[in-house]
Amino acid sequence: MKAVTFGEIMLRLKTPEYLRIVQAQNFEASYGGAEANVAAGLAMLKEEAALVTKLPDNPVGQAALNELRRYGTDTTHILRGGKRLGIYYFEKGNNIRPTNVVYDRADSAFACSKPDEYDWDQILEDTDIFFFSGVTPAVSESVKETVLDALRCCKRKGIEVVCDLNYRAKMWDKNTAQCVMRELMPYVTLCIANDEDFEASLGIHAFDGDMSRGIEQIDTYREGMQEITRQFPNCKAVASVLRSMYTVEDGDWMAIYLIGDQFYETPVHHVHSLEAVGAGDAFAAALIHMLKKKENPQYTIDFSIAASVLKLMIQHDFNIVTEEDIIRVMKSNDVNLQR
Amino acid sequence: MKAVTFGEIMLRLKTPEYLRIVQAQNFEASYGGAEANVAAGLAMLKEEAALVTKLPDNPVGQAALNELRRYGTDTTHILRGGKRLGIYYFEKGNNIRPTNVVYDRADSAFACSKPDEYDWDQILEDTDIFFFSGVTPAVSESVKETVLDALRCCKRKGIEVVCDLNYRAKMWDKNTAQCVMRELMPYVTLCIANDEDFEASLGIHAFDGDMSRGIEQIDTYREGMQEITRQFPNCKAVASVLRSMYTVEDGDWMAIYLIGDQFYETPVHHVHSLEAVGAGDAFAAALIHMLKKKENPQYTIDFSIAASVLKLMIQHDFNIVTEEDIIRVMKSNDVNLQR
Amino acid sequence: MKAVTFGEIMLRLKTPEYLRIVQAQNFEASYGGAEANVAAGLAMLKEEAALVTKLPDNPVGQAALNELRRYGTDTTHILRGGKRLGIYYFEKGNNIRPTNVVYDRADSAFACSKPDEYDWDQILEDTDIFFFSGVTPAVSESVKETVLDALRCCKRKGIEVVCDLNYRAKMWDKNTAQCVMRELMPYVTLCIANDEDFEASLGIHAFDGDMSRGIEQIDTYREGMQEITRQFPNCKAVASVLRSMYTVEDGDWMAIYLIGDQFYETPVHHVHSLEAVGAGDAFAAALIHMLKKKENPQYTIDFSIAASVLKLMIQHDFNIVTEEDIIRVMKSNDVNLQR
Amino acid sequence: MKAVTFGEIMLRLKTPEYLRIVQAQNFEASYGGAEANVAAGLAMLKEEAALVTKLPDNPVGQAALNELRRYGTDTTHILRGGKRLGIYYFEKGNNIRPTNVVYDRADSAFACSKPDEYDWDQILEDTDIFFFSGVTPAVSESVKETVLDALRCCKRKGIEVVCDLNYRAKMWDKNTAQCVMRELMPYVTLCIANDEDFEASLGIHAFDGDMSRGIEQIDTYREGMQEITRQFPNCKAVASVLRSMYTVEDGDWMAIYLIGDQFYETPVHHVHSLEAVGAGDAFAAALIHMLKKKENPQYTIDFSIAASVLKLMIQHDFNIVTEEDIIRVMKSNDVNLQR
Amino acid sequence: MKAVTFGEIMLRLKTPEYLRIVQAQNFEASYGGAEANVAAGLAMLKEEAALVTKLPDNPVGQAALNELRRYGTDTTHILRGGKRLGIYYFEKGNNIRPTNVVYDRADSAFACSKPDEYDWDQILEDTDIFFFSGVTPAVSESVKETVLDALRCCKRKGIEVVCDLNYRAKMWDKNTAQCVMRELMPYVTLCIANDEDFEASLGIHAFDGDMSRGIEQIDTYREGMQEITRQFPNCKAVASVLRSMYTVEDGDWMAIYLIGDQFYETPVHHVHSLEAVGAGDAFAAALIHMLKKKENPQYTIDFSIAASVLKLMIQHDFNIVTEEDIIRVMKSNDVNLQR
Amino acid sequence: MKAVTFGEIMLRLKTPEYLRIVQAQNFEASYGGAEANVAAGLAMLKEEAALVTKLPDNPVGQAALNELRRYGTDTTHILRGGKRLGIYYFEKGNNIRPTNVVYDRADSAFACSKPDEYDWDQILEDTDIFFFSGVTPAVSESVKETVLDALRCCKRKGIEVVCDLNYRAKMWDKNTAQCVMRELMPYVTLCIANDEDFEASLGIHAFDGDMSRGIEQIDTYREGMQEITRQFPNCKAVASVLRSMYTVEDGDWMAIYLIGDQFYETPVHHVHSLEAVGAGDAFAAALIHMLKKKENPQYTIDFSIAASVLKLMIQHDFNIVTEEDIIRVMKSNDVNLQR
Repeated sequence: MKAVTFGEIMLRLKTPEYLRIVQAQNFEASYGGAEANVAAGLAMLKEEAALVTKLPDNPVGQAALNELRRYGTDTTHILRGGKRLGIYYFEKGNNIRPTNVVYDRADSAFACSKPDEYDWDQILEDTDIFFFSGVTPAVSESVKETVLDALRCCKRKGIEVVCDLNYRAKMWDKNTAQCVMRELMPYVTLCIANDEDFEASLGIHAFDGDMSRGIEQIDTYREGMQEITRQFPNCKAVASVLRSMYTVEDGDWMAIYLIGDQFYETPVHHVHSLEAVGAGDAFAAALIHMLKKKENPQYTIDFSIAASVLKLMIQHDFNIVTEEDIIRVMKSNDVNLQR
Repeated sequence: MKAVTFGEIMLRLKTPEYLRIVQAQNFEASYGGAEANVAAGLAMLKEEAALVTKLPDNPVGQAALNELRRYGTDTTHILRGGKRLGIYYFEKGNNIRPTNVVYDRADSAFACSKPDEYDWDQILEDTDIFFFSGVTPAVSESVKETVLDALRCCKRKGIEVVCDLNYRAKMWDKNTAQCVMRELMPYVTLCIANDEDFEASLGIHAFDGDMSRGIEQIDTYREGMQEITRQFPNCKAVASVLRSMYTVEDGDWMAIYLIGDQFYETPVHHVHSLEAVGAGDAFAAALIHMLKKKENPQYTIDFSIAASVLKLMIQHDFNIVTEEDIIRVMKSNDVNLQR
Repeated sequence: MKAVTFGEIMLRLKTPEYLRIVQAQNFEASYGGAEANVAAGLAMLKEEAALVTKLPDNPVGQAALNELRRYGTDTTHILRGGKRLGIYYFEKGNNIRPTNVVYDRADSAFACSKPDEYDWDQILEDTDIFFFSGVTPAVSESVKETVLDALRCCKRKGIEVVCDLNYRAKMWDKNTAQCVMRELMPYVTLCIANDEDFEASLGIHAFDGDMSRGIEQIDTYREGMQEITRQFPNCKAVASVLRSMYTVEDGDWMAIYLIGDQFYETPVHHVHSLEAVGAGDAFAAALIHMLKKKENPQYTIDFSIAASVLKLMIQHDFNIVTEEDIIRVMKSNDVNLQR
Repeated sequence: MKAVTFGEIMLRLKTPEYLRIVQAQNFEASYGGAEANVAAGLAMLKEEAALVTKLPDNPVGQAALNELRRYGTDTTHILRGGKRLGIYYFEKGNNIRPTNVVYDRADSAFACSKPDEYDWDQILEDTDIFFFSGVTPAVSESVKETVLDALRCCKRKGIEVVCDLNYRAKMWDKNTAQCVMRELMPYVTLCIANDEDFEASLGIHAFDGDMSRGIEQIDTYREGMQEITRQFPNCKAVASVLRSMYTVEDGDWMAIYLIGDQFYETPVHHVHSLEAVGAGDAFAAALIHMLKKKENPQYTIDFSIAASVLKLMIQHDFNIVTEEDIIRVMKSNDVNLQR
Repeated sequence: MKAVTFGEIMLRLKTPEYLRIVQAQNFEASYGGAEANVAAGLAMLKEEAALVTKLPDNPVGQAALNELRRYGTDTTHILRGGKRLGIYYFEKGNNIRPTNVVYDRADSAFACSKPDEYDWDQILEDTDIFFFSGVTPAVSESVKETVLDALRCCKRKGIEVVCDLNYRAKMWDKNTAQCVMRELMPYVTLCIANDEDFEASLGIHAFDGDMSRGIEQIDTYREGMQEITRQFPNCKAVASVLRSMYTVEDGDWMAIYLIGDQFYETPVHHVHSLEAVGAGDAFAAALIHMLKKKENPQYTIDFSIAASVLKLMIQHDFNIVTEEDIIRVMKSNDVNLQR
Repeated sequence: MKAVTFGEIMLRLKTPEYLRIVQAQNFEASYGGAEANVAAGLAMLKEEAALVTKLPDNPVGQAALNELRRYGTDTTHILRGGKRLGIYYFEKGNNIRPTNVVYDRADSAFACSKPDEYDWDQILEDTDIFFFSGVTPAVSESVKETVLDALRCCKRKGIEVVCDLNYRAKMWDKNTAQCVMRELMPYVTLCIANDEDFEASLGIHAFDGDMSRGIEQIDTYREGMQEITRQFPNCKAVASVLRSMYTVEDGDWMAIYLIGDQFYETPVHHVHSLEAVGAGDAFAAALIHMLKKKENPQYTIDFSIAASVLKLMIQHDFNIVTEEDIIRVMKSNDVNLQR
């Protein structure tokens, strides 16, 4: 059983503690990106998982590759070459102060990579699940073309395709996003849609944009999820995380999973996050792990939301937790986490 | 448009994380003091703001000057010479453990500076607003005399004078404070009075000393504010921050602004602070910025309290936030911050 | 007046911030262990307190000894020699992520020390109180024998014996623990029993294991405490800390003190811990300090629980607080800490 | 008296100690670039010195600006806007291991800035000396055009032009460099040429490329210097640093100054460098400072080489030393530094 | 082409900078051991190289495994289980102060592993070269038996065996070492013998123990090397590093390679080391790499000594350098490194 | 056997690595002062040694006391009270860049302490050796009076008095120093005089001030030493360290010991220092240790200079080395350290 993810991994430069970028005299260096985080999360769950990307052939690119390898991700399909590794500067918010991200990812080796550099037939050999998020086609036109190549190859080989819509307003506008994502959705068999993704990526209504009352909107969420399966019949399942956020750190989290006509919902987790990065990627990795283990839908979604909220307590982008760690959170849930 | 502040800037030696001073093997070095913080806060809001002080002509004094300059404060009126830079050791509390400050500021270059070292006519040229806090006259007798010189010069030039009463029990007793501050108040046009300042600095009742229920005492606060304008008719406006503190970090914050006969009140912000230093100075800087922009009183006080609570999430003494950062807090207020 | 504690001090290797062990590139090195923490806590309260243990005669053992000495613990009875200093790796949890400890303490100099290496008659000269926790006899068979030697010597000399049952499932099973602890209890004059200790160490029912509702079980706690005094008549007093934990960090804490037939109970402290290590040891140290000062039982238990919850806000194992710090927490209790 | 420099300032990400980039988990963040270093060096010598550049209007660009301001550089002519701040990763070598720099500077705000964004008539008002290095025209074609605009403006205003040829093989090839630099040289009044610059930037022979015996080649250096004044008669003076490097850190350093027909030479300094970055920029700043002070040529070049070698003992890019510090090195020279 | 190494990897706890262990408040955590270092060095040279060892199934063991994986070492044959990971405390010396190592490696998972846990036939499938050092059989009797099993398997499969004698006085005495190593030598095809190894491990004279004049003893070294090939005819080649050390950091280094009857000698490198750990392992890795590339003997030994001295400039145990890095040192050798 | 030292201990704030004070964002905090260093050095040599001083009764003073205690110094005679702990800022030089110290020690608790606060009869009970350096009487007039009291008490009790002249130009001028020190010398039985001390403290010629050739002046040193014994017949022995310093870090060190009429001289140590602080204090501590052990004069001075140069390789002020460490340096001397 093998999963392949396709996307960009960046150098993350985080200020120490809660310093602002203008105050910082040094940065913590780590590496992350949606698809890299999913691959690393899967490796932590002892799945065979490869990231496909392109990294510059310099020590910075090597460091990114090494970090993937350190946690067991398969890096054998990573291309080397190109100009630079993309960067994101990260300033962690707290309480009423929002987290701030400054992207410096233009012209990265990955963004400039061309479709014909990737030999999907060979890459996807023996692959069971292919994962990408909406970030990947937003990176560049040529990367979007590469995604299409990969998806066509998945179709030929009967590989399941999981897509986290993952809309990023800093990368593209809604019109472009919808145009592209609607072109890709017919290949997707499991779709993850959160918060504004419904509207921004697909033009489907589900969430009104008020993060302080996401969970209250559970009904429109359900409708949006069903609308996805209606518009894209190839998509057999939809998973969504609902959040009501009270401060930058405090919020209620739950998930819904629609499979066939059936909805499965998790309890609500009330959490105070340490580092709210990669929770969606942790959710996706856990979901894929469940698919591979063929767990029942209720366990699947309970495990996935537990993995996701546990990521909020882990520093850096990768969800460095074991299956046992996640199960412990699921079990303790009834007494300590719900209110 | 230009603001001038007058006061001491000290070296702040903070233990890492929450270590006690006896546990620390190193200290974070930064620089702060009420008037320096106000000047730096104004510079962050893109105002022209100068700190007038005296710094030793050694690398430690230079480092303090450089930190001011780094964030855009005008340092051209800073005197150099004297023995030493004052220091305060800072041990951050959490939850039920109070924050602890150990002063080592006696005999600083500023404390020993003489009135005739300052040429106020030249310093205050083209100045619109002069700011000092009650800390400055508490530093030493000669500094108090210098404050008087500056205030007389302000009167001659028609410069507005903002004073934050800012009583510090570790620096002087109430009798001395009242005697001095009442001598200075006739020059003040806008007075900031918080918590115990009413009583300690002016002998006016407003707050009973119970920090866990400051906001409940809003009525006596209003009376105290009116009493200030009654006793010091030159003082056209009074601003106060009211707090109900539940732990060292958790509390409710709001502000009242009395201008003419009219009170303007802000919503209550419930916050969990990261580093509860300089919130009052951030408030003063924001208020002065509003005065300069001639914003309406309600916007003025809403903006000022937002600046003040946002400072609670910023490390070190200066309020390293932009106008946009503050406005974002004001806007998110209705959904996320109030309860 | 002098206290002697007997037990192991280990090197504690803590990851920075909240990093997982597999993420860490360096460790904070400090030293701790139940009895060492009690001795250091007593020294901070200006009591004469000695730790009796055995440390390897190498720089790592010396560093442990030096850390004890630094805070004023008497180290003159510490044996030197043997193979190694025990270690515990420490990974601090937060919110829903549990704290993780990895022991590497087998074959330590202390565990391998023999009863005849300790000259209790000489060590306990002029001693008023002897303290050990259930961790000590769990270390090794020979250490357990040494405890018995010490207890017999205490009996001969009329020294008061305080024992914190302190059951550790990672060190021994309940059967062994009960067998050993029931052999030692006849020498104990004051017993501290918390949470699962009643059942695991003595086979007495008090707590059902649900940490989220410890305080609700106050009645069975009281019964368990009385049962201890019934079964072990030499034991004149029992103290227990009751906790209802809502997350890894948030919880309600209170204590009960049974002396003679009378129960004394403290108010409930609602706290958010910074580093939940050594709170029980801080409780024991404060209790012993109160015994020595012959304070009344209500003040004794109020002071002890205040010392214990204040430890939750202190980094590393030792409770680096003064008597004044503790009294400040006791006083602020009514307004800020209870809800 | 005022100096203006024109060039790029980058974020420098240095690994801690001597770690390789692939080993680093964090980077020290500082800011530097040839012309920024010269401007900062002049400010440290209490000269009025402005850097002209373009910085992105984001916190990373602001941090670069703040660092300049911190040490007193005039930043009022810095343009804001564009995509990104250039970066260079820096791995410090030692002994036989060479220092390694990885550039990530393409598409920076400065590189993409256009000639018409700079109003040289206004910028160069009241300016005495204009400085640029060969790095600046190598950045991009449009920046090279801007340099030409600035030089023409200098000619119109009679401003002295100092140019450090500063050839960088990682930025352009010799042919392009020679073509461009020979176009710019007719505007230069004082030229600094070191090591391979003669050949690479101007096609003039002086140095054979063997860094272990630079000083032995003093005769060909002298000829190369004269050849510059012959080919570019507007260039009244040439200064060169000669080095014989034995390891990455150990070497002999001296300088020659040709003014009119006269050569002035310094003693040889034998030094072991701490951080061999910016020594050439320190040399240029000191030389400009001497020009402004109109010191005699021998003192000028002795002071400049002392400033340059002292920079080797200073961390980060800027030469954070005072005039007194430099003079102390000059004086101690005869006993301690020469062999 | 594949290499397999067999030995222990430990947690290395190094004090920051040059602090003594008793001064340290934290430790840098890295991982190393002779055979692990060789495997990692080979992976850095893009060879397929596996470490065979046993690691505890806890996060500390996982961290060691991850560090190997990070730099590309094959970890698929690593057993998991057992009690603990061995540790060595490391205090770096300088100038006249010797480096100090404190071992805490007894009872490690590796030391307690049994011969029948290793399936050598499977492990050594497709293996070309097997490497072990004299440290491995010194770890424990059962590990020594496992080495013998592995060597017998090598003989059956015709795998080349490289052994670095690597005598460690802190692990065993000379008599035991000689007894064991002489039993193992008949399986060795290439032997590395340095300094005291000749005498201590094999009872053959070569070096008189005076580290300040190792190179002067080149003649007795040559005789010792020949004696090895005479006594152990299966051993076709011997390589030795000769050192004359003037301080803890300064010394002259060269190597000799005896193959058949022919000696090949390198130039002398004069170096000042940054961290004198793992230079011998770097030498071994480079030598094995040369064997695999079938380079000529002179290039082989020149490359190997360059790799070895370059390691002296790299922090931590692994030789994090590329083939290009090593070749650059070889080339610069004639001008900068020799005297 | 017991030694007592009398002097000031200060907080030392050192910039990280080699940063200048104006660059530093944090300081390493340690504690030192000549007499404290001597006491700590003696404790490291397992001597009973007490520092007599006065420390403020705040956490900063406590931290200084704890650091002494950590390494085994007797702190029972330390007075508590007064205003502040003296500070020295420390910026480590390298190669041609001198080390820089900024004192902020005026008005310290110690400087303001009065003679009648010290009960010398009680303090010096059972004391064998009293040590002070020329720094102590330079601190303040009242401290100088206290020194006299102590010396008179020593005379009464027949306690040996060791004085390191230790002239500090930043604390007093030569005239004052000579006047005071010549008043104190009649009580001194063993005098340590280095470099400029002869002239500055006593007005006796020995050294011409050229630090690059101290050892060449051995003859005038010998004469100066004899002149001391001639002028102060109570002084039975004089010890001097001679240095020829080539850079800030490189130099030759040796010592001479005059006892009776006989000179004893050590070999020359060529060393490269890591942190050139406290070497003189390490020398004094070793000398006192030798006096107590009644070693012969040649061994005494050889041991003392070895202790002194070894301190150059130790960070912070205290000489954290054991007797074995020093002996190892003495032994390795002939091969590695001398040239």
